[in-house]
Amino acid sequence: MSSPRVFIVDVDGVMTTGQFLYSSRGKAFKIFGPDDSEALSLLRRHLEVRFVSSDKRGFKISRARIVRDMGFQLDLVDTFERSEWIGAKFRLEEVVYMGDGIFDHLVMEKVLYAIAPQNGDALAKLTADYVTERAGGDRAVSEACLHISEKFFNSDRNGTLDSNNLRSSK
Amino acid sequence: MSSPRVFIVDVDGVMTTGQFLYSSRGKAFKIFGPDDSEALSLLRRHLEVRFVSSDKRGFKISRARIVRDMGFQLDLVDTFERSEWIGAKFRLEEVVYMGDGIFDHLVMEKVLYAIAPQNGDALAKLTADYVTERAGGDRAVSEACLHISEKFFNSDRNGTLDSNNLRSSK
Amino acid sequence: MSSPRVFIVDVDGVMTTGQFLYSSRGKAFKIFGPDDSEALSLLRRHLEVRFVSSDKRGFKISRARIVRDMGFQLDLVDTFERSEWIGAKFRLEEVVYMGDGIFDHLVMEKVLYAIAPQNGDALAKLTADYVTERAGGDRAVSEACLHISEKFFNSDRNGTLDSNNLRSSK
Amino acid sequence: MSSPRVFIVDVDGVMTTGQFLYSSRGKAFKIFGPDDSEALSLLRRHLEVRFVSSDKRGFKISRARIVRDMGFQLDLVDTFERSEWIGAKFRLEEVVYMGDGIFDHLVMEKVLYAIAPQNGDALAKLTADYVTERAGGDRAVSEACLHISEKFFNSDRNGTLDSNNLRSSK
Repeated sequence: MSSPRVFIVDVDGVMTTGQFLYSSRGKAFKIFGPDDSEALSLLRRHLEVRFVSSDKRGFKISRARIVRDMGFQLDLVDTFERSEWIGAKFRLEEVVYMGDGIFDHLVMEKVLYAIAPQNGDALAKLTADYVTERAGGDRAVSEACLHISEKFFNSDRNGTLDSNNLRSSK
Repeated sequence: MSSPRVFIVDVDGVMTTGQFLYSSRGKAFKIFGPDDSEALSLLRRHLEVRFVSSDKRGFKISRARIVRDMGFQLDLVDTFERSEWIGAKFRLEEVVYMGDGIFDHLVMEKVLYAIAPQNGDALAKLTADYVTERAGGDRAVSEACLHISEKFFNSDRNGTLDSNNLRSSK
Repeated sequence: MSSPRVFIVDVDGVMTTGQFLYSSRGKAFKIFGPDDSEALSLLRRHLEVRFVSSDKRGFKISRARIVRDMGFQLDLVDTFERSEWIGAKFRLEEVVYMGDGIFDHLVMEKVLYAIAPQNGDALAKLTADYVTERAGGDRAVSEACLHISEKFFNSDRNGTLDSNNLRSSK
Repeated sequence: MSSPRVFIVDVDGVMTTGQFLYSSRGKAFKIFGPDDSEALSLLRRHLEVRFVSSDKRGFKISRARIVRDMGFQLDLVDTFERSEWIGAKFRLEEVVYMGDGIFDHLVMEKVLYAIAPQNGDALAKLTADYVTERAGGDRAVSEACLHISEKFFNSDRNGTLDSNNLRSSK
């Protein structure tokens, strides 16, 4: 299997638990978890990391976490345009994709390597090449990063350890 | 078994985890989850979808999510008036009902087909025709939609796939 | 075993998940769950229901839910004064107590009948006469109410059903 | 094994569930749980208790809970400087450390005794001397305190019981 050049991560249900809190004024909060930011900072040395989300109403929340605080690129891309969107930016055989949703199998079938978190949709988990033991918002992305490092780059968390990359990522 | 014409979904514990956050000023947030909105947009092509809630204090929160953001009809209906209320609007043998609560078995006994989420009350789960593997706020409604599509309409998530229906539902 | 006259329920970890949300300004939210309020409204017909809490900082939150919205009495009582406090108000052999905490076994040893939720402290669960299958904030109190109704009052959720008691309790 | 003199506890994922809530304005809430504060108040009689966190953006939230409300010392210490930081303040063979993160094994290898919560990173759990049955924000620290009391100080929750220490810690 060739080496991937980009890791594209769906935000909701992968970086988050998938849940969102509503008040009477609308979508207010999303729930993120530990270690994912640190692990992505390590993985970033091996390949590009980008995020996509189809959640228009919660996009400002995702942006606060992913773009402003973690420093990654995030695009609003509908699930049904995702394969096409990815194909226009990257060669699909260079893409590792991680998603959890009801239509993410459509993307997973086309990329080099697909990962689903434990809390993902049943068909997404069936279609993925790898299903993490941990759920979104509970280290699923951290686990995926370690898996990618080992599988494609012969590297573990100690081998890739470079404290300079990790200081301000939480 | 005849085909259902309406899917009536209880909000709390089915679309949400059942939990609600209280501050010193009262009920403030409810916790919704992934995929349910997308799956309901698909199912909507086969039958009418409506929501009921008996939560008066949290009704504004439910309305923000169900009515304003998802575009479905929502009525405040007490559990003990629910069978009667449904019967006045629909023929009970055309109703699929999904609920999780301590008295939802009273409704479930009367409709065509009843579904309970994994996190539901023990008697509700015993009375239901189908219990989802997933819990409320964690894809229970998405799973129920796929189940209804397959059981009553010979349709799966791909067969009913029409991206035009799904764009703005998250 | 004689019939109990009062059901004393600890708030945190029993009516709630035990968790609380902190912002930079302090304790802000507690997480309550479904069915407990309805089940307590039923049980109330058989015996008195009261609440205790040792959480001083979160007392206003507990009061908003338990007193203002559910209409029950709530007292701030430290865990170590709890047996004494209960004994001053009731005959201990008439008390059913439900608690989850690290020192609740001290109370449980003295009352007629003790219940712990699934999420409770290990020793509390060992000491309790009955451990619910459900966790606090996920129907533990509802399950306890049904258990008390059946064990002490030969009554189930249908037998005690009186819709007039249940309308405005959510 | 010699007796420890200090218990150093990582905040996120140990005192909390590891999760944090984001709004469009950034990190807003962390989720703490029951009994940990009471258990630490007991343990405090046997050894010093201190907290560390590497979460700069959420430090004000941690400080509100740990310093202002619980009365413990809390320092902002990056994961990669943690062993060094601890070594500069204490003899490493007198330290019990509890952590859950992707790089906490680096600290765990150097101290007298290491504890990980059930929800911890896989390698942290492999490296720890003791893994609690309970997760962070769900009594993991309480369980760790009882374990330390029994293992190093021949003391249980009743033996060390002194109500004067426990009144205002919740």
